[in-house]
Amino acid sequence: MKAFQDYYPENVSHCYGCGSQNQHGHRIRTFWEGDETVTRYTPQAWETSVPGFAYGGLIASLIDCHSTGTAAAAMYRSEGREMSSQPAFRFVTGSLHVDFKKPTPIVELEIRGRVKEIKGRKVVVETTVSANGVVTARGEVVAVQMPEDFGTPR
Amino acid sequence: MKAFQDYYPENVSHCYGCGSQNQHGHRIRTFWEGDETVTRYTPQAWETSVPGFAYGGLIASLIDCHSTGTAAAAMYRSEGREMSSQPAFRFVTGSLHVDFKKPTPIVELEIRGRVKEIKGRKVVVETTVSANGVVTARGEVVAVQMPEDFGTPR
Repeated sequence: MKAFQDYYPENVSHCYGCGSQNQHGHRIRTFWEGDETVTRYTPQAWETSVPGFAYGGLIASLIDCHSTGTAAAAMYRSEGREMSSQPAFRFVTGSLHVDFKKPTPIVELEIRGRVKEIKGRKVVVETTVSANGVVTARGEVVAVQMPEDFGTPR
Repeated sequence: MKAFQDYYPENVSHCYGCGSQNQHGHRIRTFWEGDETVTRYTPQAWETSVPGFAYGGLIASLIDCHSTGTAAAAMYRSEGREMSSQPAFRFVTGSLHVDFKKPTPIVELEIRGRVKEIKGRKVVVETTVSANGVVTARGEVVAVQMPEDFGTPR
């Protein structure tokens, strides 16, 4: 099954968190499950805060890329378009908020998102991170449709 | 000169962002400059959002670890203690907020922090990330003194 990230155009597929072309990165893969979106990711042994527990910056990164992927998928859905149709939607992060509730053990994590609001070029996504069925962190991302000139010299 | 992170006890020096013992990690180093704290970090070529620009998750990670380090240093200062004195202060992240203002180019970044508030076991740190003298992201972290039993099985 193709993940949201498999539909990203090549020139925006180099993100360390979610770019399928970034050989060093996390290459997360996100899917619909009903009205929610799900990414599953197992941290590397060295992606730690203290030994055995996942690094907070990794958790923030997973929430970030999961949410921009969710924003794109939600925008296709809201327009009744297939993800393979053109022009492609791609989102960047306007703001990221994470509440760390408990230490997150290094096991397969489930990142689960829900679209809170779509407004113009902006999508707000609420996300939970769970380990062994327990929510260890909650996130909220304001994702913004990528400007055409994003990352070009000014 | 010793960085804040050089004073972390060995058992909490394995963080992917700031642990001096994590050979895979960023190993950031933070210092006082007057009443502000400064970390300088140059992203790896592959730590990208789009090619040539730094990954948002990395920026969040730098803000996170810079802020927990700042929190520890500030707590020593507020108690009039040397950072080499015992018991050691070490902080974890309660919450992390990042506003991404502009794309951040891959150059040496300056992460600069300021203590907004110290209240009991909690320190609030405001941070900017600058590239070529321009602020590209702003962060706020609520850092909480690490519980004695952090990361031990329950």
